[in-house]
Amino acid sequence: MATEQHILTLSCPNRPGIVAAVCGELAACGGDISEAHQFDDVETTRFFMRVVFSVAESDGAEQFRARMASLAADFRMTWKLRPQAHRARVLLLASKFDHCLADLLYRWRTGELAMDVVGVVSNHDRQAFAHHDLQEIPFHHLPVTPDTKADQEAKLLQLVKSTGAELVVLARYMQILSDGLAAELAGRCINIHHSFLPGFKGARPYHQAHARGVKLIGATAHFVTGDLDEGPIIEQDVERISHHDRPADLVRKGRDIERRVLARAVSFFLEDRALINGAKTVVFRS
Amino acid sequence: MATEQHILTLSCPNRPGIVAAVCGELAACGGDISEAHQFDDVETTRFFMRVVFSVAESDGAEQFRARMASLAADFRMTWKLRPQAHRARVLLLASKFDHCLADLLYRWRTGELAMDVVGVVSNHDRQAFAHHDLQEIPFHHLPVTPDTKADQEAKLLQLVKSTGAELVVLARYMQILSDGLAAELAGRCINIHHSFLPGFKGARPYHQAHARGVKLIGATAHFVTGDLDEGPIIEQDVERISHHDRPADLVRKGRDIERRVLARAVSFFLEDRALINGAKTVVFRS
Amino acid sequence: MATEQHILTLSCPNRPGIVAAVCGELAACGGDISEAHQFDDVETTRFFMRVVFSVAESDGAEQFRARMASLAADFRMTWKLRPQAHRARVLLLASKFDHCLADLLYRWRTGELAMDVVGVVSNHDRQAFAHHDLQEIPFHHLPVTPDTKADQEAKLLQLVKSTGAELVVLARYMQILSDGLAAELAGRCINIHHSFLPGFKGARPYHQAHARGVKLIGATAHFVTGDLDEGPIIEQDVERISHHDRPADLVRKGRDIERRVLARAVSFFLEDRALINGAKTVVFRS
Amino acid sequence: MATEQHILTLSCPNRPGIVAAVCGELAACGGDISEAHQFDDVETTRFFMRVVFSVAESDGAEQFRARMASLAADFRMTWKLRPQAHRARVLLLASKFDHCLADLLYRWRTGELAMDVVGVVSNHDRQAFAHHDLQEIPFHHLPVTPDTKADQEAKLLQLVKSTGAELVVLARYMQILSDGLAAELAGRCINIHHSFLPGFKGARPYHQAHARGVKLIGATAHFVTGDLDEGPIIEQDVERISHHDRPADLVRKGRDIERRVLARAVSFFLEDRALINGAKTVVFRS
Repeated sequence: MATEQHILTLSCPNRPGIVAAVCGELAACGGDISEAHQFDDVETTRFFMRVVFSVAESDGAEQFRARMASLAADFRMTWKLRPQAHRARVLLLASKFDHCLADLLYRWRTGELAMDVVGVVSNHDRQAFAHHDLQEIPFHHLPVTPDTKADQEAKLLQLVKSTGAELVVLARYMQILSDGLAAELAGRCINIHHSFLPGFKGARPYHQAHARGVKLIGATAHFVTGDLDEGPIIEQDVERISHHDRPADLVRKGRDIERRVLARAVSFFLEDRALINGAKTVVFRS
Repeated sequence: MATEQHILTLSCPNRPGIVAAVCGELAACGGDISEAHQFDDVETTRFFMRVVFSVAESDGAEQFRARMASLAADFRMTWKLRPQAHRARVLLLASKFDHCLADLLYRWRTGELAMDVVGVVSNHDRQAFAHHDLQEIPFHHLPVTPDTKADQEAKLLQLVKSTGAELVVLARYMQILSDGLAAELAGRCINIHHSFLPGFKGARPYHQAHARGVKLIGATAHFVTGDLDEGPIIEQDVERISHHDRPADLVRKGRDIERRVLARAVSFFLEDRALINGAKTVVFRS
Repeated sequence: MATEQHILTLSCPNRPGIVAAVCGELAACGGDISEAHQFDDVETTRFFMRVVFSVAESDGAEQFRARMASLAADFRMTWKLRPQAHRARVLLLASKFDHCLADLLYRWRTGELAMDVVGVVSNHDRQAFAHHDLQEIPFHHLPVTPDTKADQEAKLLQLVKSTGAELVVLARYMQILSDGLAAELAGRCINIHHSFLPGFKGARPYHQAHARGVKLIGATAHFVTGDLDEGPIIEQDVERISHHDRPADLVRKGRDIERRVLARAVSFFLEDRALINGAKTVVFRS
Repeated sequence: MATEQHILTLSCPNRPGIVAAVCGELAACGGDISEAHQFDDVETTRFFMRVVFSVAESDGAEQFRARMASLAADFRMTWKLRPQAHRARVLLLASKFDHCLADLLYRWRTGELAMDVVGVVSNHDRQAFAHHDLQEIPFHHLPVTPDTKADQEAKLLQLVKSTGAELVVLARYMQILSDGLAAELAGRCINIHHSFLPGFKGARPYHQAHARGVKLIGATAHFVTGDLDEGPIIEQDVERISHHDRPADLVRKGRDIERRVLARAVSFFLEDRALINGAKTVVFRS
């Protein structure tokens, strides 16, 4: 009998016995845990958990799902159970800087990012992406001006719905989402900001960094919220610079940081490793 | 009623239900898990686990210990259960390079390393450590020559026994332990090697690194085994160097790497985060 | 005839021929360059240079000094010429957190930091530093309250003058210098701030970092100016943290970052590698 | 009158007056230095220098070239003078793992790597690279078997000659060059090895790293010599791994390290920053 891997993630108010209850039900269904993480936030008294397990393909997972539903009610859990093989549907938004897009597409093609890219959206037209092999991925040109922003966002949201996108990635999209759209996409929209937040919020962060004379520059991937550059941070990284670096050098060096930070954040999302904890995240790294 | 934190570590042949069994017994004793890690080595089919939990001070821990003894027999577990507040007894061995010793003593004094230093041993005399405030720590001068090595090691082992040392740290001790002593201290003796192993084994690794023209140098903390420089690696780190760096510069830069790598490895040991897995280690980082 | 190493540093408005003029004079005095750096700031059109050279001991250096004086007038240079063997006189200021002080003293004792420590100053008394072997270094207890701040700073400045201190290091001194004192010590006072500036300025940066949920924390060494946390940055570094880390963990992890960032900044100063360029620095790393 | 940037690199036996002589001649031709590095290898007593300067377009550079020829004879210099705008002709060799190729092509397209790609060569056919937009770049399928290796290498060398390639990049080419071809391409052929040399030489380094249980993995870019994995190292980098990582995870994580290490090494070559110094390199980083 074949076995199948599944991923369970949950959070709930902390109290004794959560792990025992979950693992007890799992054992009763014949589940075998291969990876598990817990985190007990003593400030918010909220508990977070991620378990990867294998179970007999027949009906073990469904049995466990039923038992979890009952547990979840008792423990007031927010939870998600899915086959590890499930590939999330992802919509990629880009603008004229295409390094993050190129990187995500490459990692998708090699299988490193186990996702289905259901569309590429840009305010620039298809021609701007001529060098990319988008294969069968639908491309959507959604130009935007201050006057047409509401209309454009309505089209964008419609696209999210029609494609069934589970994740929207702002891969240097360069457009600020309205509060309404940000709220609509809460928890499933990731942005890459080209600075080590909270330093250098807002526009032209590399120019700000150059003016301040910092010795390291960075990038930040975060969940998008209505509060610009204040969403829960998923991943950050930095690189050393020197006085020789002009703003253009920082832009160039920054591309490498941005693409690896965004790729990591997307992979954390796809593997259900990044859980939102108020204004912060819990990231269960392997 | 006060509660107390405890740490459980175990390893055993993998099979379904281990986590459920352990957490079930823990829940039955009123335990509340605050941190947990599991690792299932698919190559050796061995399972590793570390759980931090709190339990009512009265007899919860003793109850759980009794239940664990029974479980351990069923699952053929190697296991350890101890109060988190327990401070391991540690013997520090040093030679003329005292940067690692100085660093460990500083971290001990500030409380960062929760250990009881039961002695400092050196093949150099007390005068060589005049700049260190050893406070009440006993100092043992155990000079060694090729002729007296067997005798010196016998004294050293006697010291380990009489002090009840649970960990022996070779803090740039510069003496190679005999196979017999290495075997005797297996699993409780940590060495810092001044190279990024497996590169530059043996003597004068910084000179070897300089001769080879590498662009990064490193250090490695590992459990000591009879097989020199081949023990299970606990922690490693590196730093960038340049063509300007002479061997003396590498020695200087290396001191910083060595002391932070060794301090991390010792702290992993003290917190029961580093478990031996054959020729390798499992390190459950926080 | 013995030779002696010297270090020349200079800055001036950029124009063709500076390097040729300086190196020509140096060659005429029999100087042999072993290390040289230049930087031409195209924004400010200011030129920076650092040259390490050896010259016959007799009068080569004095000859070159005379020729440089003439050149400096022509090129409107700010310049400094000194024997590499010169050890700067340094005053260390500390408060109750003594990890940076301990680290600087250790590096001084091993000869890694080639300086003469002319005094340790603290608002805490000598007893708070009982664990440090200060040897012959004079200790000055200068307590401070809001009421006595002006008076205390006057004593501090007097101490700088009487000791001939060329550098004042705020090694987690925890007191904010008045604008007047900051101005008085301009260019020769280095502070370590326990955040990755410009993020988390002001008080309790580790608590701010924890609240924001960043994934890396850092430290910044900078020249002190009247504008708090805005002085020219000399060195920065970061380390990865996780959701498990409480503010106390950040404080602990931060100590390691602080001490290595401050030690590097001090060594850059001692080797005349850190030159002020307006609100920024030029750091000629080896 | 327009000015033009040039790059001068040279090495010669060390003796006093080299910098003065070179900069004197440069000043005499109206040159203005914007960046300069020197290195004096005290072990080999060889001197290395790189100067970036601007000069009036008319005939300043040619004048300087003539004067340098004369200087070079006096000082026994190996030297190179070229316009900064010169784009090196580069031949890229790849095999079935195309991540390094994809990365180099992306950086070429964005202008980050200022080179002319004169061809892509592989032992796999064009179809294996269908996802890459090679644009007008000629593709050469040169299959190889043990029996045809000599013949294939002859074709490869012919291609190097006919394209005028100044640099050959083994972008995970997976074929070992014969001693003869390695010698023929000495100083202009860069390989990326997927380990932190000198650790894990030879085949399947990620599997070796996994077996040894190291805590960091790395990659090394080096000039190719007849002595496999022993060529002068240009650049290295590492990333942290854990006990969770299987060899396949190391391969995946390693791809990121390999591509950034190779890209940096190629850019150092293109900017004449990497000079060979016997079995080592001098790398003048900006």
